Parts: sequence; structure tokens; C-alpha cells
Amino acid sequence: MLIDDDRLFPAEPKVRSIARSLYKSIRHLPIVSPHGHTQASWFAKNEPFPDPAKLFVQPDHYVYRMLYSQGVSMDDLEIGQAVMKEPRKVWRIFASHYHLFRGTPTRMWLDFAFQELFGLTERLSEKTADHYFETIAEKLTTAEFLPRALYERFNLEVLATTDSPLDTLEDHAAIRASGWGGRILPTFRPDPVVDPEFGGFAERIAELGAKTGEDTATWGGYLQALRKTRARFSALGCTATDHGHPTAQTADLGKTEAEKLYSRVRTGQATAAEQELFRAQMLTEMAQMSLEDGLVMQIHPGSVRNHNRKVYERYGRDTGADIPRATNYVDALRPLLDRFGNESKLTIILFTLDETTFSRELAPLAGHYPCLRLGPPWWFLDSPEGIMRFRELATETAGFYNTVGFNDDTRAFLSIPARHDVARRVDCAFLARLVAEHRLEEDEAHDVAHALTVGLVKRAYRL
Amino acid sequence: MLIDDDRLFPAEPKVRSIARSLYKSIRHLPIVSPHGHTQASWFAKNEPFPDPAKLFVQPDHYVYRMLYSQGVSMDDLEIGQAVMKEPRKVWRIFASHYHLFRGTPTRMWLDFAFQELFGLTERLSEKTADHYFETIAEKLTTAEFLPRALYERFNLEVLATTDSPLDTLEDHAAIRASGWGGRILPTFRPDPVVDPEFGGFAERIAELGAKTGEDTATWGGYLQALRKTRARFSALGCTATDHGHPTAQTADLGKTEAEKLYSRVRTGQATAAEQELFRAQMLTEMAQMSLEDGLVMQIHPGSVRNHNRKVYERYGRDTGADIPRATNYVDALRPLLDRFGNESKLTIILFTLDETTFSRELAPLAGHYPCLRLGPPWWFLDSPEGIMRFRELATETAGFYNTVGFNDDTRAFLSIPARHDVARRVDCAFLARLVAEHRLEEDEAHDVAHALTVGLVKRAYRL
Amino acid sequence: MLIDDDRLFPAEPKVRSIARSLYKSIRHLPIVSPHGHTQASWFAKNEPFPDPAKLFVQPDHYVYRMLYSQGVSMDDLEIGQAVMKEPRKVWRIFASHYHLFRGTPTRMWLDFAFQELFGLTERLSEKTADHYFETIAEKLTTAEFLPRALYERFNLEVLATTDSPLDTLEDHAAIRASGWGGRILPTFRPDPVVDPEFGGFAERIAELGAKTGEDTATWGGYLQALRKTRARFSALGCTATDHGHPTAQTADLGKTEAEKLYSRVRTGQATAAEQELFRAQMLTEMAQMSLEDGLVMQIHPGSVRNHNRKVYERYGRDTGADIPRATNYVDALRPLLDRFGNESKLTIILFTLDETTFSRELAPLAGHYPCLRLGPPWWFLDSPEGIMRFRELATETAGFYNTVGFNDDTRAFLSIPARHDVARRVDCAFLARLVAEHRLEEDEAHDVAHALTVGLVKRAYRL
Repeated sequence: MLIDDDRLFPAEPKVRSIARSLYKSIRHLPIVSPHGHTQASWFAKNEPFPDPAKLFVQPDHYVYRMLYSQGVSMDDLEIGQAVMKEPRKVWRIFASHYHLFRGTPTRMWLDFAFQELFGLTERLSEKTADHYFETIAEKLTTAEFLPRALYERFNLEVLATTDSPLDTLEDHAAIRASGWGGRILPTFRPDPVVDPEFGGFAERIAELGAKTGEDTATWGGYLQALRKTRARFSALGCTATDHGHPTAQTADLGKTEAEKLYSRVRTGQATAAEQELFRAQMLTEMAQMSLEDGLVMQIHPGSVRNHNRKVYERYGRDTGADIPRATNYVDALRPLLDRFGNESKLTIILFTLDETTFSRELAPLAGHYPCLRLGPPWWFLDSPEGIMRFRELATETAGFYNTVGFNDDTRAFLSIPARHDVARRVDCAFLARLVAEHRLEEDEAHDVAHALTVGLVKRAYRL
Repeated sequence: MLIDDDRLFPAEPKVRSIARSLYKSIRHLPIVSPHGHTQASWFAKNEPFPDPAKLFVQPDHYVYRMLYSQGVSMDDLEIGQAVMKEPRKVWRIFASHYHLFRGTPTRMWLDFAFQELFGLTERLSEKTADHYFETIAEKLTTAEFLPRALYERFNLEVLATTDSPLDTLEDHAAIRASGWGGRILPTFRPDPVVDPEFGGFAERIAELGAKTGEDTATWGGYLQALRKTRARFSALGCTATDHGHPTAQTADLGKTEAEKLYSRVRTGQATAAEQELFRAQMLTEMAQMSLEDGLVMQIHPGSVRNHNRKVYERYGRDTGADIPRATNYVDALRPLLDRFGNESKLTIILFTLDETTFSRELAPLAGHYPCLRLGPPWWFLDSPEGIMRFRELATETAGFYNTVGFNDDTRAFLSIPARHDVARRVDCAFLARLVAEHRLEEDEAHDVAHALTVGLVKRAYRL
Repeated sequence: MLIDDDRLFPAEPKVRSIARSLYKSIRHLPIVSPHGHTQASWFAKNEPFPDPAKLFVQPDHYVYRMLYSQGVSMDDLEIGQAVMKEPRKVWRIFASHYHLFRGTPTRMWLDFAFQELFGLTERLSEKTADHYFETIAEKLTTAEFLPRALYERFNLEVLATTDSPLDTLEDHAAIRASGWGGRILPTFRPDPVVDPEFGGFAERIAELGAKTGEDTATWGGYLQALRKTRARFSALGCTATDHGHPTAQTADLGKTEAEKLYSRVRTGQATAAEQELFRAQMLTEMAQMSLEDGLVMQIHPGSVRNHNRKVYERYGRDTGADIPRATNYVDALRPLLDRFGNESKLTIILFTLDETTFSRELAPLAGHYPCLRLGPPWWFLDSPEGIMRFRELATETAGFYNTVGFNDDTRAFLSIPARHDVARRVDCAFLARLVAEHRLEEDEAHDVAHALTVGLVKRAYRL
């Protein structure tokens, strides 16, 4: 077997037994996935997923980053190709390098999917590559592997996508119109019309104006266009916004100053510092709008995008060359918090790629300001060790109730059950240690486990 | 029962058994509390503590921070009210939110006090709120709950307060005059007359001059006034100073430069950078005076005070809105260390809210410079996980003997035994692991446990 | 006995049993030591080591740093004395302070050497000091304690030294000429002729020119001189370079700009910023040369050298007063990576003293760029807790196969087996936990343990 029923539980028998008991009571709870990057079109069209390589290798930068780091060519993996020419060859390369993933969460997620979804029980390797390829390819053609069937099989209750303000959301509308009961929700991610460093910014602003009937050549019209777009998202079930800024910097400019800045940004005259200031100001504007329309704000700062210039030039954005940077919150968030920090009707969920901030800045901030919550460990940190450190570093100051459950944050739809399973198990392992060390009673640990799995997610994301 | 006799010991039976044995040998040692924020007036007047809400909720920002972060109003908790109007109502709010403290040290400290001091054994909740209130209120009126009786019951050997240079220390004098055997010592905390950013700085400097008969309009007179005040503190048993600066920056200016800077600071002309430079210079001046008069220096940098503007404006300083910031020591301390770093007669105890510095800067510094010692985990870090990480991060480079035991650092007098108990247990848990992994012999672990509890504290603080 | 056969294995019986089994299979593998600071002359001359104090106390800054931090005078320890006057007195000071090392890796390394090499089984203390001194002194005069005999007894397969480009390498040549089978390899460490802040920089550059017959007054001649020197090192078996810069900053200047900068640097006109820029540029030049000649690059940034001014002035470089500083890689390495990051024929091994970068920057970088590998925990971090944290922080993102085994990095030849033993045991302890938690199969863990001990080292260092 590839996976064991006791995986991720501490070895010490007493702690393991408590962890098992906690896990048992939450194992079959539905998955609430309020933040991720699956595609609404899958559920709108409900067509079969293509071959194994297209499904597991090409879209998952955790997978091809590791292969690339060890000298495998991204061309050989057909990264960025719309249609794969030799999926079996790609799969074989992947299979013959499977040992590289030892000790990584990717390995655990994949083994879970291989065994639980495809019934595979012998380890992936050069030797078993073809057997895997054929088994998976065959199942993908069956009705039970269609997107909607998988949604149901995964026991998903909510699945949020991430969408540009310029997106028509027609797939979301189509899902609603279809009468299918799955709850696929859009998330408002305005970076393309808020971050001046995105290529084609001016064109996008103009397009936003055209789509909303607002004059986005003015600051007021621009804000109004964003308001209208948020309303359009809300009408399709959206409950949250998401902001992927380089830093957590916020600003609170007067109206005249903001107007001037917008004009410079819109016309491409802004310096790098002004672009940063504009993004900073926009976080505060978004908080203002969230107070008005009730959308929950997610802030995801601290990633240096497209760090590898050549990979970016050849393969484009989001191809695995984003690297975290040290992130400051305590000073950066102050302008926004000065204005809205004490609003208990506002919810801002903070994420980080810099785990030194958990105990130093984020838990103290979230453990004080009524509007702040701590997002789960993100990206490189949504792993067994990463989740455990998050609980160890944040809980003592922020408690459990200022956290918001788990995000799978993934493009890899088939890994969603595995990712939530890892998070649930590690949370139970952490709670079990608290119980075994008499820091929490077992009945309370059950309560907390349930809250971390479902209750806090729904409350924070207003689902 | 609320607390278990094996709490905080690792679950693995062999390690737990070693931890128990270590703890047994130090459990009943007296508490030496060289750094905290209790009030000398309690012991001078020896009057009963007021009601449970006034005792447990109102003064403890760990408690109301968490409640506030989850939407409870600080007004409803009567924060900042000299006399509580509805203590029972406040207590009920607290009790009905007690689940928020799951997994936090606050919960462990409170449960310890509830059970050990008040004999309560059923968990605090909405249901038991009134029973708690009445039980505690009743006991507080009895003789055994008077401050001096509690001091003795807690087996305190020394309890240091924290005092402004402008304080008359009359309560300290009264305690000494009373003939009571308790050892309540003042600590010289000059921030109000050293930090130009404190409101009313010029008036305070003038007051310092008046109190000491020195002309504090001059740099020499100002330093002389501080010297005299330190002597006044020493005469009442003070052995340490404490410095709560925003950063760890030090400076070593020439006399003329320092005089000029003082003049600008004193007359309110100093820029923010000059104010920072002045604080930096004053750390070096304080080190000079410590070399002369033998007072131990404590440096507590890295807290952004009053981060929440509205809470500060409404409720004042120290109401829970201080947030840590990343702190540099390696460059910041260099001017002071260049001058005094090799003085083994000087003791400077360094604290941090930025635990990344434990292995990177603080342990290497304290493991080399004869004048430096590592203070215990402070504030958000004086918790089971925080103390354990401190030992794991600092011991390998600084050893045990460059550390100085535990500080409870609290305003909450009743939590003192609980806090020291947590620290002792976690230290024993750490040592037990070293013994179980054959990294330390058991007889040595007993030695170390004793040193961490009493010996190193007394030596470092010269008690 | 001083050391136990189960030392450093987790106490939990199942995990311990797996760790034992893993360790058993790698315990007797040869030691590959690709980075350290032993002296080639020892093996060239093969003369007996001097007395115990000269061997264990004087050269080991881990040892005398700790003693100094607790008030022992460096003069009393005869630090910096070419010939020791009173080695027995020095040894007694050391012995009577041996408790200071409790909980440190130094203690484990020393106990290992005392017991395994000298057959000592009673703890070092004031009481046993003379017995130790005499036992060790006597053995040092015997044939089996000569450097070459120890090399063989330690089961060393490769031992790399660290050498200046101005070094004649005559000892290396003599070893080769001697016909002895030991593999002692030089490492090219160009800091003295690359870092303008080293005293006597211009003279060194001139000397480099003289030695290579190149005109180092020109940029082109300087680079050519370095090329020739690298070739001279390669001819004696060198496979790696090493760069101990204050930061990880790299640069990629045009030729004209670089020429101008070199001219200012060479003639002593460069500002501090220009000196930093020059070091930055030289890392990129070195990468270029590595692409040409195949030498592996090691970058060791982030140490503030000679932090203690008085100790530096009195005792010179490398006397224990170097302190780590926070280090940025994500921005600093970008110029070099922009140019060479995608070269899979280039190997750059990154080290850090700032462990916050393991999960935030280094593992994401090494888990993506084909040229990057993660060096083992360095200096203050090459300890049981440090190694374990490294695996916990880096493995999930970089995997095992982007790491390069262990470096002992030591001047203390006799501690080499102990240091590798600690690393092997901690790696096995980490792997055993993964196995016990069903995150890795046991057969894979055996594979990985072998790779971490030998395979990855040889591959990364091209041995």
C-alpha cells in the first residue's frame, strides 16, 4: 500500500491513539475549500480530464519545479504546451525521478490520489510508469472521474476559484444555470487592474471601464468600476477578495493625493515607489469596500514573482519561479489598521511565506485587532512540518479561534482531498500532543478539531 | 480537576519519568522573581484584593486582548475604569468566552490559580461563571489572601517591581520600615526620563532636576541626577535597571556631541533620528554607570508601542496594543560592546520579542562577550512552546550558564506561581529529552535544573 | 562511559529502533569531508600532535568562546601563543569549566574523542583533569596518533583543506609526492585577493600577479591570474572554491564598468559600497570561471567578522568574535542567477548562518534553480538541534536530493569523526520519524541515509 491509515500521527502510542480518535470524528466532514485555483470551466463543461501527464505533471509547479531543479528540462516536460505531444514520455520522466519527492508533501498528496482514486498500490517508479499511465488514463475516461462526479466523491461543500475582475464569470453563471448542486464560487482577485507592474495595465483599466460603463480615466470612476465588479461577483456567490501584493504595505492617502497618484499610475508615469504606494492605497480602498459590501479580504504578500528571468521569458507567469521574501506586517499594515483596525464587521485574513512572522507579528496582530484573522500556512508551508510549526508558533498568542481552517490553494483538483487530509491529520496530531501533555482536555480538543475543519472556515469566509 | 500533575511533560513514558524526577527536585524551591510589574503598594498596605474581575480580567492584557480580538468591547470589560461598576457582568463575559484561551498559556496560568488558590475544579464557563465569581470573591476577603500572606504562600524569596526615576519609592520604604520579612525590590526603569518620545519629556527632566538638586538643563547635571537616583534605588535594595527601547541601538558619542544632542532633545528640537540616537547613547551611559554602581542592566527592545491608535487614544498606554518588530542586535549593540563588551564585571541581560535572533545573534553574542547574558523568553514567548524553542535555539551556542532563569514579567500577582511552574516544567521537559537522548547525564540535568531555577537568577541579578 | 550507543536517537522505542537500523547501515561508511580547515602540513610532515591543550583548547574557538563568555581570560588560555608555556595549567582551567558545555555539541564532540580515541570513560572535571592530560599526552606520542594514522583510523576517504590563492600548496604537493594514499585536497578560497576590506589588499594583488606572471594592474590580467591559480589548484585535486563574503550580494556589471571599479578598488579609492559591489561582481566572475573549469562554488555569507574590536586587535582574525547577521538571498543572488541560474553544469552550494532563510529563501531557490544546492547547517548550526531543524525546514520544499551531505568545517582534526557521527545520527533520527509517521517507506529511508552520507556529497563536490 502507498498510504497508511496512521500516517502523520506521532509515533508515541498514547498520543497516536488520541490523534486517531480526534481524526475519526472529523475525517468524514465535508471539505470546505474557500481559496484555490481550479477552473470553473471544468464544472461548467463537465468533460473528462485529459491524460495523466496533463493532469499531474504539467499544471503542478510543485512537481516540475523539483524535476527542473535536478536538471530535467522544462521542454521535455512540455510545460506551457496547450496540447501535449508525448504525454507518456513526460510521465516516464516523472516516474523515473519520483525518488526526488521523498520527504515532500507532494509525494504524500500524489500517493494519496494514486491509491485512493486510482487503486494503485505499488510505488511509482520507472518500472511501474506504464502501468500507472494506463490505469489512470483508463479511469479518466469513465463517468465517475468527470469533474462533477469527483466534486461529489470528494465530499466538497464549497469550492472557490480565483478570478480577474475582467473575467466574464460565464462558467460560474453556467454552473448556476445548470441546476447542478455543486457550490463553485468565484473570488474577486483585482491584482490585474490594481497592480501597475502587471503588463498592459492601462489597457486593462480601459477594459474595466468599458465593461462597467464607468469612466476609469478618473479616480472616482475607477473606484466605482471596482465596486460594480465586486457586486457582479457577489451576485454569483463570491464572498471574498484576494490580493497578491509583493509586500503588505498599506497607505491612507487623502482624496486629492490619491487622485494625483492614480493619474500618474494610469498614464504609465509612476515610479516604482509610486506603484508600490498605489498598491498600498488600494488595499485600504478595498478594505473600505469590504466594509460596505461584506466581502472578506485575503492578503497574500511576500512573493517575488518570476524570479527566474529566463524561465519567465520562455514559459510565462506562474511557472514555478516565484520565491518568498522576508515580509514586514507590523509597520506595513498600520495605515489600514489605523483606519479600519477596530471594525469587527470587517474580516481581513493575513497570509505569509515568511514564517518568522507567525510568532513575532501575525499572532500578536490577530490576537488583538478585531478585523484580523490568520490564514493557514500558505504555499511552501502547507505541508506537515509547515502546518505543525504554524500551530506551534501562532496558537499560544492568537489561539485557535483567530485562525480560519485550511486552504488547499491548488490548481491540482485531484490533490484536494489529500491536502485537506494532511491538514486535518496534522491538526489532530498537534491537538493530541496538547491533550497528552494535559494542556487541553480531550472533549475540548474534539470541539477545536471540528472548528478547524469546518466551523472557523465557514465563519471567516461567510459561507 | 483543572490541572494534572504531569502537565507539560512529554508523553513518552521514559522521558516523562525523567522529567518528573527532575521536577520533583526543584518543584518546591523558592520563587525568585527579579523582573515584574506588581505594585509595591499592595505589600506596603496589605489590603485585600478587590473582586475577581478587577483581579483577573482588568489588569491582564493577555486576557482582554484575546477577548477584544474576537469582538468583545473593551468598554464592556470596563478596561481603564478605576472602580468597576459591574464586575459580575464583566466576569460573565469573560467566562462565556473562556474557550478562546484553549491552547494558550493564559489558560494554563488561570486554571492553576483557580484550582491551587481557590479550590475550583470544574472548568470555567458561562454555566460556572457565578460559582467562580462567588468563590473567588469570598476567599479574597480572608486573611490568607492578603498580599503578604500570598507572598509567603507562593514561597517567594524576592519580588522586583519596576519603577520610574520620579517615583518616591515610598511604598518600598514603608515595606522595609514595617519589619515584614518579604523582599520587595525596586527596579530602576529610566525610560520616562530617557526616551524623548514619551509625552511631557521636558517637564519630567525638570522634575528629575528638582528631586535631585541637579541642574538637568546641562548634560553633566542630567547624568549626575540619574546617578543620584540610581543610588537612591540601590539604597532600597534595587540591583537592576531596565530599558524598554524601540530598538537595541546603542551609540558612543564624544562628550561635546552628546551635550549638543542632549540640548536639542531637552528643548524638543530633536528629529526622530536624533531621538533614536539619544536613546542609543543613553544605553551606553547606563552601561558606564552600571560599571560604577554594580546595577545589572536589562535591555528589552523591539516592541512597537501603542500600535492601535484608537485604543491608545481611548485607553492609554499598556492596553494590549503593543506588537513586536524584527530586531537587530549584531550591529545595534556594537558601539556599546566596543567600549564595554569585555568587562566581566558588567552584566547586561538581553531580551527579545524576535525569536529568530536566538540562534542567529543572541546566543552567539552571549556565548562570546563576558558582559552579556540571555534573558528568558519574554512576553508573547514566555509560554510552553516559546520556552522550549528558546532552549532548543539558544543552548547549543550559549549553553545554560549564559542564561539567567525565568522572569514572570507580570502585573497579575496571582499568576506568578503558575508562570514559574510552567517554566520549571518546560525546562525539565527539555532536560529530560537531553538525558533520554544521552546528550546529558541525569546527575548533570539535576544540577542544571537547580541552576535554572535559582542559582543563575541570583548570580545574574546579584541577589 | 561518556557516550552511549543510542545517543541522539529519539526516546520513543519504535522510532529509536528504526533510527538504529538506519544508522547501522551507514555507520561504517567512509567519511567524505569536502569542506574544512585542517592543515595539509600535518599530513605532509606526519609529526605527532603536541600536548592536549594545544590540540583541544587553543585551536577550537567553540571551546574558548564559551570559556571567555564566562569570564575566563584568553591570555590565561594562551590563545594566540605559538608555543604554549603552561599547557597543563590551561588544561586545568578548561577541565574545571567543563560544565559550561552541558547541552552543547562541543561537549558531545569532545566526549566522543575522549572515549573513542583515548579510552577515557570518567567525565572530565577538575578532579580528572590531570589524568586526562597525562593519558592524552602519552597517546599523542605513539605512532597510531600520527596524522596519517588517524586519517586512516577515521576512515576518511577525502579531506579538503581551505587555501589562499597565494599559498604555494607545497604541502599538498608533498603529500602527493610521498606516495601516501590519503586524499587531502586543497580548496580555492580567494577572499584575500577578492575582498578589498582585507588588510594589505594591493600588496596581495601584486603578489598574485608576480606568482602568475600576469599584470594584475589590469582587470583582464587580474581575472587571468585567478584563472591560472584555479588551474594550479585543480592540478592538485581541488574540486571546489569557497567564498566567505559578508553578504550574498552578487552583481553583473558590463566590462567597462567592472574595469573602472577594479581600478578604484585596486588603488584603495573605493568606498564601502564599491567594495561591496566589487565582491558582488567577483561572485559572478567566479561563477563564470566555474562554468569553464568545473570547480564547484561554495558561498558562505552572513558573518560579521571580528565583531569584538578589542579581541580582534589583540588576538587577530578568527578568534571567536564573528557573529551572524540576517542574510538576504532572494534579491542578492538575482544578478548571478539571471546570468547562470539555469546552467545545470554549474553547481553553487549555498550556506547560511540565518536559519530563517531555510524555508523562506534557500529551499525555494534550491528547489527550483538547477545550479543551486543547499549546503549543510554551518557553524553555530552544525549541531543536533541545528541539523534537525535544517531537515525539518528545508526538506519539504527542496527535498533531500538538493542537499549535499555534511561538512565538518573544522580546525579540530580529532573532532571530525564525532561531528560526522552526530550528523549521521540526527539524519537517521529525522528519517526514522518520517518512517514511523508513514511519510517514507523504510527501504527508501535506507537509500536516503546512504545518499546523505556519501552519494550526494561526492556528486555535489565532484569527488
